[in-house]
Amino acid sequence: MTQHNHQTAPTQFVEANGIRFAYRRFGNPAGVPLVFNQHFTGTLDHWDPAVTDGFAEDREVILFNNAGVSSSSGEVPTTIEKMGANAVAFIKALGLTKVDVLGFSIGGFVAQEIALQVPELVRRLVLVGTGPRGGEGMATLTPEAQEIFGAAYNEPDHLWLRVHFTRSEKSQAAGREFLKRFRLRAENRDPEVNEKVAPAQIAAIDEWGAPREKPFEYLKSIRQPTLVVNGVKDVIIYAVNSFILQQHLPDAELILYPDANHGSQFQYPERFVRHVSLFLSDGDAR
Amino acid sequence: MTQHNHQTAPTQFVEANGIRFAYRRFGNPAGVPLVFNQHFTGTLDHWDPAVTDGFAEDREVILFNNAGVSSSSGEVPTTIEKMGANAVAFIKALGLTKVDVLGFSIGGFVAQEIALQVPELVRRLVLVGTGPRGGEGMATLTPEAQEIFGAAYNEPDHLWLRVHFTRSEKSQAAGREFLKRFRLRAENRDPEVNEKVAPAQIAAIDEWGAPREKPFEYLKSIRQPTLVVNGVKDVIIYAVNSFILQQHLPDAELILYPDANHGSQFQYPERFVRHVSLFLSDGDAR
Repeated sequence: MTQHNHQTAPTQFVEANGIRFAYRRFGNPAGVPLVFNQHFTGTLDHWDPAVTDGFAEDREVILFNNAGVSSSSGEVPTTIEKMGANAVAFIKALGLTKVDVLGFSIGGFVAQEIALQVPELVRRLVLVGTGPRGGEGMATLTPEAQEIFGAAYNEPDHLWLRVHFTRSEKSQAAGREFLKRFRLRAENRDPEVNEKVAPAQIAAIDEWGAPREKPFEYLKSIRQPTLVVNGVKDVIIYAVNSFILQQHLPDAELILYPDANHGSQFQYPERFVRHVSLFLSDGDAR
Repeated sequence: MTQHNHQTAPTQFVEANGIRFAYRRFGNPAGVPLVFNQHFTGTLDHWDPAVTDGFAEDREVILFNNAGVSSSSGEVPTTIEKMGANAVAFIKALGLTKVDVLGFSIGGFVAQEIALQVPELVRRLVLVGTGPRGGEGMATLTPEAQEIFGAAYNEPDHLWLRVHFTRSEKSQAAGREFLKRFRLRAENRDPEVNEKVAPAQIAAIDEWGAPREKPFEYLKSIRQPTLVVNGVKDVIIYAVNSFILQQHLPDAELILYPDANHGSQFQYPERFVRHVSLFLSDGDAR
C-alpha cells in the first residue's frame, strides 16, 4: 500500500449540510486525525507541505475547504458561527467522532467555534496566527493588512511574502522557500477562490472581531488542551491576541516565534511540527 | 568513568573577584555547558533534579551560588549589575569562553546582565520566570509575592508550593512531587542562605524593577537567540513581562505554560527540558 502525501493525495468529496466539501486526507492512520482550517481566501493548496507532511509521519492529516471556498460547493457564510457549524458537519460526514483541530487565522476562529459547538468532537486545539472574539485591532482588518492585501504584486504569490513573513532578510528568504514548496504540487491543484469569498469572509471577520462586553468570557468554555502559536510580529492579527487567548483559555500553552509575521509556521516548519507534535502527544501533567 | 548527576555531584570551589564560588558540574561533557542562575534566596539545592539531570543527558550542567549565597563566600551585592559581574568572573574562572546561560527569576536578571556585559561569552540565553528592567509590577515585590513570602508555613518547604505552583489541584500535586525530588539529595546539601541574603537581593530587585524612561531599549543589545519561558499565572513576576521581553528582544522565542505559576519548569520538567533542548540544539533558521 502506498501512502499518499501532500503532493499526491487526491481531492475527495463528501456531502453534508447540502454542501459538497472538498478535502484531502493522508498520512499515518494511527491515532486521532488532525483537521486543518484554512486562512482568509486560502485553498487546499495554501498549506505548506513541510508542515502537513511533517505531521503526516505520525498522524492523519485532513485538509478541507469550508463551504463556498474553491472546490467546495455552497456559499461562504458571513458569520464564523455558521462556518463552524459547516466544519462540524464536514467532520461528522467523514464518520469521525474525535479529532484534533488546527486553525490558522480566520481558520482559528472557526476552530474555536467547532470546540464551542461540539466540545466532545475535539480532543485538542491548535490555534495559529489568530485571536479571540473582540481582540485587539480585530474590529476590522488591521491597517497593515489593508495595505498588504490592497497592494499590487508583479507575481500574485508575492502577496504571501508580505502577509506571512516579516521584512527581515532571513524571513523573506524563508518566504521564498515557502513559495517554492507551496507550488510543488503540480497536478490537480485547487482552483483559486472566486470573487464572492473575500467579502463574505471579511464580513465574518468583522462580526467576530467587533468590540463587545466581556469579550473573553467565552474562552472559559473551551476546556480542551490548546496550543496557541504565532509570530512575535504578526501584523495581520497582532501577537498580543495570542497572549490574550492564552490568558483566558483554561488550559493553553503559548509559543511565539522570533522575527515572524502571520505565517510563523511557514517560516519555521520544522520547529512548528516538533512543538505541535510534542503538544499533541502525551506529555507530563496532561 | 562514572558520570555524576544532580544527587552525586560534589560541591566544588573556584576563586575569582576575591570570592570563593561554590558550584557543581555534571553531565555529558559534549558541546556548550549550560550555566544556571538561581532564584531569590535559592541555593544549589533549589534546582529540580528532573530538570538538571534531564539536561545533563545531552550537555554539561553547571550550578553555582553567586557571591554571598549559601556555600559561596563574599557579600550579596545590592545591584543586579554587580551580580552579573560576579557571575562573569565565576564563568571565566572555570576557563570557559562560551556558555549557554539559563536564569530563573532574579537569576534571569543576572543572565541578562551577563549577556550585556560580555556578549561574546554567551551563545544562547534561557530566561525563565523573569522580566525586563522596569517591567510591569516589578518596582518592588508584587502584592502576591509579599503575602506568600510573608506568610508562616508549618513546613518551611511548603513556601515553594505557593511561590512556584498555582492553587489548582493539579499544580499543587505537581508541587508535592517537586518537593520530593528537591529533597532527594541526602548528602552534602548546600546550607540555607543566611539572613543577609534576602534584604540585599530585594534591594537589587527593586533597583532593577524601578520605572525608568524607555525601560526596554536595552533589550535591543541582547542579540543572542533567547528562549523566554514562564507560567501563564506567574504572580511573582507577572507573565506579561515574559511577553514584553520577547517583544523587545531581537531574537526571542516565548513559551508560556498553562495553569502554572512562577516555577513552571518544576511543574512540567519533562516538557521544559524538551523545549529548551530543542531551542539549544540547531534548528531551522538558526
